[in-house]
Amino acid sequence: MTGRFITLEGGEGVGKSTQSRLLVDALNARGIDCIATREPGGTPGAEAIRSLLLDGDGFAPRAEALLFAAARSDHVERLIRPALERGSWVVCDRFLDSSRAYQGGAGAIGDDGIMQLHALGSNGLLPDRTLLFTLPPAEAKARLDARDRGVSDAIGSRGDAYHDDVARSFARLAEREPERFVTIAAGGSPQEVHTEVLRAIEPLIETLA
Amino acid sequence: MTGRFITLEGGEGVGKSTQSRLLVDALNARGIDCIATREPGGTPGAEAIRSLLLDGDGFAPRAEALLFAAARSDHVERLIRPALERGSWVVCDRFLDSSRAYQGGAGAIGDDGIMQLHALGSNGLLPDRTLLFTLPPAEAKARLDARDRGVSDAIGSRGDAYHDDVARSFARLAEREPERFVTIAAGGSPQEVHTEVLRAIEPLIETLA
Repeated sequence: MTGRFITLEGGEGVGKSTQSRLLVDALNARGIDCIATREPGGTPGAEAIRSLLLDGDGFAPRAEALLFAAARSDHVERLIRPALERGSWVVCDRFLDSSRAYQGGAGAIGDDGIMQLHALGSNGLLPDRTLLFTLPPAEAKARLDARDRGVSDAIGSRGDAYHDDVARSFARLAEREPERFVTIAAGGSPQEVHTEVLRAIEPLIETLA
Repeated sequence: MTGRFITLEGGEGVGKSTQSRLLVDALNARGIDCIATREPGGTPGAEAIRSLLLDGDGFAPRAEALLFAAARSDHVERLIRPALERGSWVVCDRFLDSSRAYQGGAGAIGDDGIMQLHALGSNGLLPDRTLLFTLPPAEAKARLDARDRGVSDAIGSRGDAYHDDVARSFARLAEREPERFVTIAAGGSPQEVHTEVLRAIEPLIETLA
């Protein structure tokens, strides 16, 4: 593989999708072939699973973890891995670490369970760099409200205690893998945060030179 | 748990759903509380996954295995285990062994992978008795055609080599677990086959006396 795989992680409203667009544009401007994608989703099959997960009536906790892993498996097999193999960069809005924080840390199956599912479904593919965006919960909520998105879906609507637990899980993951994770305070303007993103990605670009 | 868990397995057109109905009626007639269910499906969430699997455009092979495990997890957690715990019998048209034969033996993830998914998703719940219905492929096909069902769905339509492989996988599973499996030749009339089914189930009923 010659492409680079970058994931953006964090809770709702921290600006992941905005930063994903800015990053892809910046990489393209430097002549780097790059695709933007998201999870759950990214392929027709995985997007169909996304609809079940976010718009449906809900699943038992283990079933939910398996569904995220199924969507990821299709996404990795049909989009991410082929892109990386042809040398493209891939920027993905949420990936494995969201499952670890939402279904592992705050859920019923544990981090070991999530990692076993990832090994079975996606051969354990890990990102080259994971950007974790952090924001005080009240600020994230204010941003979502301002955009009139409010609490967005079946998982986003789970309440403050759940989301606090998710945030702590993300922080623990970043502590445990300091070489892969870069934690970025997302309280600034989109352009300020983007500058931090580029600083975090620069070492990957330099390895191409 | 005081209920008994019986699964019916085999390829398309061997008469599983007919035999499921006859068995449930016979158990009810003996005063045994019994529910009939099926896989993939059996709960609203699992039925939604069934639609994706059987009517959709298809998934990468590992994703397919994960989706079956997700549907089973919801089904076990929300229907099968609660029924068994309140003492009801459960008769299920397809279960774990279909995943082993279709996604494990003939698929990409292997029997170990399927069993790991089952441990993660459903705590490894195994049936008390599994009835494997066998029929020469030509006869199964003729039955499906006669019912104007033909080749029924995305998995049923996979061609003879795939289904031959599935049949061999089922046979190997039955050989390896002779205490759980009873293999029943399904070439006779529904009533003749039903008599064999009752003979296979009788030891479970006797344990209640």
